[in-house]
Amino acid sequence: MEEVEEVYTGSRAAEMEVVGGEACMGSPGHSLKEMLGMVRADLDRTVNFWLRNSHDLQCGGFFTCLGEDGHMYDDTKYTWLQSRQVWMYARLYNELDRFRTAEMLEAAVNGGQFVMSHVKRPDGTWKCYFSLTRQGQPLRTQRTLFAECFYMLAMAELFRATGDQKYRGEAVNMLNQIVHWARQDDSALGRERLSGQTGVSTLAVPMMLLYLTQELTTTMGDPSLTAQYEDAQQWCVTEILKHVQRGGSVVLENVSADGQELPGSAGRLVNPGHAIEAGWFLLRRVQATQDSSLQQVALSTFITASFRRGWDPQHGGLFSFLDVDDESPVQLEWDMKLWWPHCETLVALLMGYSVTKDAQLLRQFSTVFDYVYSHFVDKKQGEWYGYLNRRGDITHRFKGGPWKGFFHVPRCLLMCETMLEKLVSENTQQPSTPVTPTME
Amino acid sequence: MEEVEEVYTGSRAAEMEVVGGEACMGSPGHSLKEMLGMVRADLDRTVNFWLRNSHDLQCGGFFTCLGEDGHMYDDTKYTWLQSRQVWMYARLYNELDRFRTAEMLEAAVNGGQFVMSHVKRPDGTWKCYFSLTRQGQPLRTQRTLFAECFYMLAMAELFRATGDQKYRGEAVNMLNQIVHWARQDDSALGRERLSGQTGVSTLAVPMMLLYLTQELTTTMGDPSLTAQYEDAQQWCVTEILKHVQRGGSVVLENVSADGQELPGSAGRLVNPGHAIEAGWFLLRRVQATQDSSLQQVALSTFITASFRRGWDPQHGGLFSFLDVDDESPVQLEWDMKLWWPHCETLVALLMGYSVTKDAQLLRQFSTVFDYVYSHFVDKKQGEWYGYLNRRGDITHRFKGGPWKGFFHVPRCLLMCETMLEKLVSENTQQPSTPVTPTME
Repeated sequence: MEEVEEVYTGSRAAEMEVVGGEACMGSPGHSLKEMLGMVRADLDRTVNFWLRNSHDLQCGGFFTCLGEDGHMYDDTKYTWLQSRQVWMYARLYNELDRFRTAEMLEAAVNGGQFVMSHVKRPDGTWKCYFSLTRQGQPLRTQRTLFAECFYMLAMAELFRATGDQKYRGEAVNMLNQIVHWARQDDSALGRERLSGQTGVSTLAVPMMLLYLTQELTTTMGDPSLTAQYEDAQQWCVTEILKHVQRGGSVVLENVSADGQELPGSAGRLVNPGHAIEAGWFLLRRVQATQDSSLQQVALSTFITASFRRGWDPQHGGLFSFLDVDDESPVQLEWDMKLWWPHCETLVALLMGYSVTKDAQLLRQFSTVFDYVYSHFVDKKQGEWYGYLNRRGDITHRFKGGPWKGFFHVPRCLLMCETMLEKLVSENTQQPSTPVTPTME
Repeated sequence: MEEVEEVYTGSRAAEMEVVGGEACMGSPGHSLKEMLGMVRADLDRTVNFWLRNSHDLQCGGFFTCLGEDGHMYDDTKYTWLQSRQVWMYARLYNELDRFRTAEMLEAAVNGGQFVMSHVKRPDGTWKCYFSLTRQGQPLRTQRTLFAECFYMLAMAELFRATGDQKYRGEAVNMLNQIVHWARQDDSALGRERLSGQTGVSTLAVPMMLLYLTQELTTTMGDPSLTAQYEDAQQWCVTEILKHVQRGGSVVLENVSADGQELPGSAGRLVNPGHAIEAGWFLLRRVQATQDSSLQQVALSTFITASFRRGWDPQHGGLFSFLDVDDESPVQLEWDMKLWWPHCETLVALLMGYSVTKDAQLLRQFSTVFDYVYSHFVDKKQGEWYGYLNRRGDITHRFKGGPWKGFFHVPRCLLMCETMLEKLVSENTQQPSTPVTPTME
């Protein structure tokens, strides 16, 4: 059994002699300039990791189950991750000069070819498969709309990168279908309606739809699309705000269709990373609408209150799930520290600071930044580990898996690099002065 | 955040100043007589916990989401757990004199009434729902056959307890339907066949079917049924043995239909608790057939090899999942210590010892027993905690949840009490001499 030990139980936190929250509190923090340099280098390492290890030159598409050194340990092609990787390559090509290369465009277009050929069902329903064989044959479907959302994102960003109308058509048609499923009738998704079910509003659906419509409107800057999806965006914001409960102190993951609390574990569920992600989606909405009251609720409730509630005061890091009444959450991973909530929190806190220049948000950003760079980031081999236990020890040594691909980490790093660059150039905070971390 | 700390993070292992495997190795162990007394008291506490806290006197059926003190935190009725609780009450009534009471029979029959009224779909398909509202209205279905398996178990044991033919008819009809789904055609379960899928033999289906047929044949002792299901039992054993790979050194959870290893994480997956549970199902088969080569593979491969591979040498306890090639498992809970694999291991090792009188099996039993009674068991409030992290700290403070009800713990305690009683009365091992634990 010694081999198992060696493979699975190394504690990077222990190696570095920093443990969780306390270490962050005692840390002097990094300056904006230092953080910018670290993020830029990390993004380069991350992009190289996937360019080098994930391309299936034989069958097309991407391997996403990659060990810590990049070796492929499973060739299943999870379609969320296929589409997200296409989106990410195209996004990097569209947004950062150093990635506006033929290699990046080719990676996006080739991946898009695999996605268009294999992910969408050939039966005209616009439903997508959830997983495929290496060769692209369908393995599984889900009775949800998320595979379709990521398909649409890939097509929209490919259109931005290439100007090819076929991608725009795919994106718009898929989005219209998703809006129909989300707002009118989701029976085609295959979930049977049963008599005990009452209407539940999950946070995931309106927040995802808000993000998708923002991509087609704000990001692409097409006035005709902006008008077309304004009503859908307003609906999304209304639905998202239904999840604010208990006097603005908490964002609940599931509420009734009319915005009331639901009984049971599902009704009391708090997903801090999800609420914080919704927070920065709302801040993007505010950039388009200048709605100051929406900015206030995004910052104070979705981002700050969720960060304070979700941050583990003992070991640092964000809990994955909590119960608002302090019952024991039923999710097995409730106390694990996962990579993606930390990505979303970095983006949200830095976006909040960029908008308000509230130094407290920057100090909270510094706390999360310190935790991330002492726990998740693998500076040697590239990319981040994805799963830590409550104490911050790495529990899963892979860099990519069925749910972790080329998406949250590089999206976070791209957005943070862009925001940090602007802050450094604005020179409002002394860019060479360390930012003292805080959890408050 | 202090409240969250207090609610979620108490470490019972730390309180007791014993930590995992090392403590077990240094422990003098308990004698058979002591273990019998501890198990008997534990079974009484467990039964009382559920009798006192779980009965829904208003709507029928059982609350299964119960906190550590027994309070109900969610009233959803998960049908696996409803049917299992009926089976368990009837089983206790049928097998142990002190539980052959009117109260126990009434609990089983009343629960059976709720199950018959609400769990099976009213459309004649013999499909069952997966979860219900408190009032019994359907909430969710699964595209598998397990809710149906537990329905059948409940009906079979109710027939043993009451002699009422209506239960026998339900059990036999449901079992015939399950055999059809498992062996002929499972398209009615609702899973779409997709072109990338190849035939996969999961360990769960044949082992569950072997257990069900044993209940109707060996347990009920009906010669007509024994003949009727002999072919199905042989098929189950053949299917289960396909999962033995690599020269008998490992039981893999998923293999191809013709018994070959599959690629990827699913193909390399080891679930030690599941393999050990299959081991004691096979030993029950041997009791009926006297097949000594099957006894050998059940003991050496399913039970002993799985125990040695699955036991955490650093902290003690059984891992939930492993990868046979030491890749990082992708399951979030792979390194967590869950209650049910420990229940199955206690049963399997004690059954193995009872059959062979191999002292090594009894010493391994003593190791697991020490771990269980220093980590899972709540002597004060009754029942076991269900979920520990790798180090043995309790992570989920409830006693019942969506997957943990009145089943694995009392089934284990009932079987261990019966076997320990027999061993003590046989006097082959000095019943008052401590059994030294070992992990070897």
